[in-house]
Amino acid sequence: MKKVKLAELESFCIKALETAGVSPEHAAAVTDVLVTTDTFGVLTHGTKNLGQYIQKMHAGGLDAKAEPSIVAEGPGFAIINGNKAVGMVSAVKAMKLAIEKAKQTGIAYVGVCNSCHFGAAGYYANLAAREGLIGLSMSNADPVIAVPGGRKKAIGTNPFSFAAPLGDGKSVFLDVALSNVAALKVIMAQEKNQPIPDTWLVDEEGVPTTDAFKFPKNASLQPMGAHKGYGLAVLVELLASVMTGAGILSEVASWNLDLSSTNNAGHAFIAIDIAQMLPMEQFTARIGQMADELRNGPKAKGCERIFLPGEMEWDKREKALASGELELTDAMAASLTNLAEASGLELNLY
Amino acid sequence: MKKVKLAELESFCIKALETAGVSPEHAAAVTDVLVTTDTFGVLTHGTKNLGQYIQKMHAGGLDAKAEPSIVAEGPGFAIINGNKAVGMVSAVKAMKLAIEKAKQTGIAYVGVCNSCHFGAAGYYANLAAREGLIGLSMSNADPVIAVPGGRKKAIGTNPFSFAAPLGDGKSVFLDVALSNVAALKVIMAQEKNQPIPDTWLVDEEGVPTTDAFKFPKNASLQPMGAHKGYGLAVLVELLASVMTGAGILSEVASWNLDLSSTNNAGHAFIAIDIAQMLPMEQFTARIGQMADELRNGPKAKGCERIFLPGEMEWDKREKALASGELELTDAMAASLTNLAEASGLELNLY
Repeated sequence: MKKVKLAELESFCIKALETAGVSPEHAAAVTDVLVTTDTFGVLTHGTKNLGQYIQKMHAGGLDAKAEPSIVAEGPGFAIINGNKAVGMVSAVKAMKLAIEKAKQTGIAYVGVCNSCHFGAAGYYANLAAREGLIGLSMSNADPVIAVPGGRKKAIGTNPFSFAAPLGDGKSVFLDVALSNVAALKVIMAQEKNQPIPDTWLVDEEGVPTTDAFKFPKNASLQPMGAHKGYGLAVLVELLASVMTGAGILSEVASWNLDLSSTNNAGHAFIAIDIAQMLPMEQFTARIGQMADELRNGPKAKGCERIFLPGEMEWDKREKALASGELELTDAMAASLTNLAEASGLELNLY
Repeated sequence: MKKVKLAELESFCIKALETAGVSPEHAAAVTDVLVTTDTFGVLTHGTKNLGQYIQKMHAGGLDAKAEPSIVAEGPGFAIINGNKAVGMVSAVKAMKLAIEKAKQTGIAYVGVCNSCHFGAAGYYANLAAREGLIGLSMSNADPVIAVPGGRKKAIGTNPFSFAAPLGDGKSVFLDVALSNVAALKVIMAQEKNQPIPDTWLVDEEGVPTTDAFKFPKNASLQPMGAHKGYGLAVLVELLASVMTGAGILSEVASWNLDLSSTNNAGHAFIAIDIAQMLPMEQFTARIGQMADELRNGPKAKGCERIFLPGEMEWDKREKALASGELELTDAMAASLTNLAEASGLELNLY
C-alpha cells in the first residue's frame, strides 16, 4: 500500500491537466473534484481516472480547451452545452450557476448536455451544502442495468446524490448508483472466485445468476430494489438527458472503453436555498435533531455505531486532511505512475 | 369480488366528506385524489382509507374545516401549514402552487407541515405532468424502517414519486416507498404462513429474519438497497420535514393507529416547467425515444412485455374508466360498507 502527499497530488494533477492543454482555471477545478473525491475515500472516482481523461483528450473524445456555454436560461433554470469539455468543468459551472440562481428564486435547476463522466456526483451536491444550500446532483451513463422484464443492458447506473449542510462545515450526503451493487463488487467476486447473491446480475436470458464471471459480456446489473431503482434511473435519465439534449440511453457511450468517441452524457443539478424558507439556525437545529435521533438509536447486534449518510466519507476526509496524505490502492498507484510517465512529470509515491 | 360504479363511488365520497363537515370544494379535491388512486390500481391508498380519515376528524386528529395557510413564500418556493386539514387538501394546494410558481421561474418547491397521510404520492406528481410539467412528490411518515446498524424502527417508508408527461395525456411515473418491500407484503406472507426472504425485515436485535410473524411488534422493515434507501429516506425527511417544520422521525405518529392524535407529517413537492427549457414537441419526441427504446428492448425469458414506470397503472386506469366501474378487494368493500352505515348514506356494491 503506497501513499502520496495530498498537496503534491494536487499540484501534480493541475500540471498534468495543463500539460494536456487545459486552462489553469479548469485544471484547478477538475483537480479539486478528483482530490476531494479521493479524500472522501471514493478512490474509484477520483484521481485514478485522470490518466484516462487525459488520454481521452488526446484521442479526441474530450476537448481540453472547450468552454461550456449556456444555451437556455431563466430565473430558476439553465441548460448548458458542455461542448465536450471534461465533465467536471461543465458540472462545476452548472452547480455554481444553480446555487447563484437559487439564491434569487429559492430553488434552481441546471441541466448539462454534451458532457462526459463527471466523477463522483457527491462533490457537486456538496458544493451547494458548503454554501448553506441543499444540493442534488445526478448524471446518466452508458447502459449497464437490465430493466425488469428485459435481458440486455438498457439503462445506466445513473448516479444520484444529495447533500445538506449540518452547520459544522460537514453535510449529510448520499452518492449512489441505482444498480443493486456496483460493477466493482462483481469484479471483486471474480477476483476471489466467489459466487454472488442472485440479486446482483441477470444473465443473457434476463434470469438472475450467481455466476460473477458472466459479467460484463453475458450479464447485466440488476436495478436497486427492482422496479424502484428502474424508476429512479428513469427519473435521472429525464432530468439529465431528455431535458438537456444529452444522449438518451444507448446514445451514451462508455467513457473509457472508447476514448476517441464523444461520451454524450448529461447531468442535472438542483440547489435549494434553505435560508429563504426558514432561519438558518432553525434549520441547523432541526437537521441536528434528525441526526442525533438517527445516530443515538439502539444498535443492531454487533454494531457499535450508526452512521449518518455521508458520515463515513467525512471521517475519511478528516483523517486525510489531518495527515496531509492519502493511501492509494494498487490500481490507483499504477494509474498515477503511468500518468506521471506519460506527462513527463514527477510524483513521489512512498 | 364486488364492484362499484365509479361515478357512484365519487358522489358517495363527496357526500361522506360533506357529512363530516368538509367543504364541497375540499370534499371534491379529496375524492379526486382517492378515486384516481383506486383507478390506478393502488387500492391500499384510495377510498379504502376514507372511513378512517373521517373517524380521525371525529376523534380530533384531523380538522374537517381547516384551511391550509402559506407561512413563507418567494418566487420559486412556499411553505404551507396544513393546520391539521386532511392531507390531500394541503397536498393538492401545495402542488398547484408549485406548478403556478414553476410557470414563472422554471422550477418551484413547496413544503407542507402539520399535515397527515396524503394517500398515494403519485397523484400529486401526476397533477404536474397533466399540465406539461415534471412533478416530484414525497412525504415523511411514522418510523417503520430500521436504518443500517440499528435495530429499531427509526425512519418512515417516506414515499417518493415523480411523473413526466408523455404527450398523450399519460405519464411516465413512479410512486414507491423506500423500504425494500411494503409492509403489506409481509402481512400477506403471514396470511399464507410462508417464510420471507431475509432482505425484508430485521428482528428485535437488528438481524435479518425470515420470520414474517415478528412484524410489526418485534421486527422492522429493511430500507431499499440498504444504505441507499436509508439515504433516500433521509432526503425525503429533509425536504418534507426538516425544511417545513413538520414532525421529525419519531415526532410523526401513526395516522391510523391513534386517531385522536395529530399526525404531524410533512410533504414536499417540486414542479419543473419543461416548456421554458426546450420546446414541448422536442421534449415529447425525446421522452418518446426513451420510452420506445425501453419498451422495445429484448425480453427476459418468460416475459412478454417491458413496462415503463407507471404503465401498469395507466393500463388499469384506462380499463376502469372504459368500464365505468371498479373491482374492490374484500377489505375495501368492507371499509366502504362501514363508512356508508356510519354516514347514513347508500352505496351500491354488486
